[in-house]
Amino acid sequence: MKFVIIGGDAAGLSAASRAKRAKPELEVTVLEQSEDVSYSACGMPYNIADPDRDIQELVVRRAEVFREKQGIDLRTGHRVDRIDREARTVSGRSAEGDFELPWDRLLIATGASSIIPAIPGVELPGVFSLKVLADGGRIKQWLREGQDRIRRCVVVGSGYIGLEMCEALRARGLEVAVVKPRPRLLPWLAEELVAEVRSELERQGVELHFGEGVEAIESAAEGLLLKTSERELAAEMVLFAIGVQPNNELAVDAGLDLGAGQAVAVDRSLRTSDPEIFAAGDCADAFHIVSGERVWIPLALRANRAGWAVADMVTGRGEPHLSGIAGTAVFKVFDLQVARTGLSEAEAKAAGFEPAAVTIRSRSRAHSHPGSSPIWVQMVGDRASGRLLGCQMVGREGAAHRINAPAVALHAAMTVADYAQIDAAYAPPFGPTWDPTLVAANQLLKKL
Amino acid sequence: MKFVIIGGDAAGLSAASRAKRAKPELEVTVLEQSEDVSYSACGMPYNIADPDRDIQELVVRRAEVFREKQGIDLRTGHRVDRIDREARTVSGRSAEGDFELPWDRLLIATGASSIIPAIPGVELPGVFSLKVLADGGRIKQWLREGQDRIRRCVVVGSGYIGLEMCEALRARGLEVAVVKPRPRLLPWLAEELVAEVRSELERQGVELHFGEGVEAIESAAEGLLLKTSERELAAEMVLFAIGVQPNNELAVDAGLDLGAGQAVAVDRSLRTSDPEIFAAGDCADAFHIVSGERVWIPLALRANRAGWAVADMVTGRGEPHLSGIAGTAVFKVFDLQVARTGLSEAEAKAAGFEPAAVTIRSRSRAHSHPGSSPIWVQMVGDRASGRLLGCQMVGREGAAHRINAPAVALHAAMTVADYAQIDAAYAPPFGPTWDPTLVAANQLLKKL
Repeated sequence: MKFVIIGGDAAGLSAASRAKRAKPELEVTVLEQSEDVSYSACGMPYNIADPDRDIQELVVRRAEVFREKQGIDLRTGHRVDRIDREARTVSGRSAEGDFELPWDRLLIATGASSIIPAIPGVELPGVFSLKVLADGGRIKQWLREGQDRIRRCVVVGSGYIGLEMCEALRARGLEVAVVKPRPRLLPWLAEELVAEVRSELERQGVELHFGEGVEAIESAAEGLLLKTSERELAAEMVLFAIGVQPNNELAVDAGLDLGAGQAVAVDRSLRTSDPEIFAAGDCADAFHIVSGERVWIPLALRANRAGWAVADMVTGRGEPHLSGIAGTAVFKVFDLQVARTGLSEAEAKAAGFEPAAVTIRSRSRAHSHPGSSPIWVQMVGDRASGRLLGCQMVGREGAAHRINAPAVALHAAMTVADYAQIDAAYAPPFGPTWDPTLVAANQLLKKL
Repeated sequence: MKFVIIGGDAAGLSAASRAKRAKPELEVTVLEQSEDVSYSACGMPYNIADPDRDIQELVVRRAEVFREKQGIDLRTGHRVDRIDREARTVSGRSAEGDFELPWDRLLIATGASSIIPAIPGVELPGVFSLKVLADGGRIKQWLREGQDRIRRCVVVGSGYIGLEMCEALRARGLEVAVVKPRPRLLPWLAEELVAEVRSELERQGVELHFGEGVEAIESAAEGLLLKTSERELAAEMVLFAIGVQPNNELAVDAGLDLGAGQAVAVDRSLRTSDPEIFAAGDCADAFHIVSGERVWIPLALRANRAGWAVADMVTGRGEPHLSGIAGTAVFKVFDLQVARTGLSEAEAKAAGFEPAAVTIRSRSRAHSHPGSSPIWVQMVGDRASGRLLGCQMVGREGAAHRINAPAVALHAAMTVADYAQIDAAYAPPFGPTWDPTLVAANQLLKKL
């Protein structure tokens, strides 16, 4: 049986590896349009922060390992242009010419791409986005070659990547300005928590211009000139980080259904609307564990896990044990940890719940323990059912790993009352006797 | 109605505060034998580590606040000698003389005491234990007054307190030797994890003598001489940290039932065998969330929570929403975080499960992220039901807060397969894409 996979990153190679391991006689072919496979995309901002590190250090497993040790027919530089569902083939181009390959089972793992707005100047040298390894390489090269000249960067957008890149670019000694069309930073984050992120950015010398659309980028004497609705910003570098979109073109052309966020719609076993074609990773949607609704939240763990689940389907292990996603995420903004799981208050309302929310401020260490810093927790519950719906956290320490406890509670569909009873760990260096999430749960109970 | 509470620390004062807040007309009297109330006992090793901090900094709320702001009749220096269940009174002694007080509802929150073995020399100056604030004060005074003379301490026992005190005493510049009768360090901890703790202690210059009983302490020319079954150790200070025992004397004399670990037996609503008498905190037992069995695991969060639950019972809020305990705990041993929740493999076997266990080594940060360190996870599941039974972790970062996620899973009686599906947070500075607990769960699944 021939198992063909389009895309050689997290989802595609997880599926390939697990399928080949389970069923060595399976012919597994992976078609990757770039030359890079199996790398830590999320590590790029941290790699860029350090001029002495090579971007290739982010490669987790080299192509030869997949080919020679794992017996996977991994072809880089192979761009698929068409899926033929009738003939059960994929066709495309590589440096060696056109190719066409038959498949019995197909996995679409084409990922997502940075959104670049259709404004003048986005093609100018010095204008970047950051999604694939080559993007990271280009940015490092630009910084290296222009190290005497490049002093300023404008980051357009302020999601995870944008904010992580603010830190990376400040670490490289650049002045950084953030421009974003929408007036509010991190619109999904509770207001008090946003305020902390904002003041951390300001404390770190990042200039913020929110509520300003970017209209054009022009070439100027000393570099680039970025024009917003309000001002002109001179810089030697511009980074677009306004978000990503699923690479759904092949699926659309093949007549497959789209789901949330224009991602490829998949059922709970990752089948697309064609039961022999699967989709996984950043190009596919998922079911939310709290709302039950289709959502598109492209994140690395899900991509890996979905790849495994597809392998289990293809190798005949049967329907995978694959839960929905909680949208659990964490990122670092300079010295702050920002974490979330589940639904925000607004998302809960939109999903038909009757949310109540509290925001509390606690401490990262016990009463009187030295080195303590504030930790903010927002918790959302449902008035109708008492169920825990979501949790968000911001702090200088102790937020990143703490978020997984409410995440587990969401998977277990726990009530806030049940969560408030969790026997959580306590020692003075690591938190107060009542874990901050328990303080939030106790407060939230009063509103439910 | 008169609500009398014996003991003015976590459980007693949590109960007093919450009861008085819910029902201001309630007469709440707290009888505390010492002069210290409401302090962070767990913070004592960290306070002792710093000669410039006063032990009184550990007081969370002063006695006057309870008296004047909260309207609680808090009497320090009042030692209760007898509970009369017929007459519904307690009697005892204070500096002002004997007292007798009537009660309608009584809470026994007498805590626990350090175990001091019956060997010669334990009463010598320089021999300490560490349970109450006065113990901490005495140790600080001893170190301060003898700062030119005190160079060596022998810690007898190696539980949480013993190991935390190793760190504190090393921070004070002392040479530290640990002596313990049992041959194995932290017998509840998985072997590979124990090895890490042991090498951390050695790395920090702590001398270890395990499997040696302490036979006597003698006064010597330059201080003390501690004699074990194997050797003589000279020191200027000895700390007994071989464990604690519940202060159950009043309950025993009153004919109340004892439960696990000779603690006062309580039902799920914290009633003792006399339904008008409650017990909470370190003197009372509890039900384990995994085994359902009575256990005695005296920890601070439970004491606070049990105090609240008793207040709800006394003020007529009805049966409290009080879950069992998971035995979740964390402590710091120099640069290591050691955390646990649920049952160890041996405990699981003893509780009638068919445990399978795996130990994995993962990293605290993502592939190629700088500053990463190893993190060990042991996970225990039940072959018969597939249920998650327990988890242990050791690492230099990321263990302390990570343990709460499996703790929540224990409360939800999740299977290992369900836990393996948790949508956990990922960002390169905080862990690998697959959270270490997920790596452990995936491995454990293969053995179930």
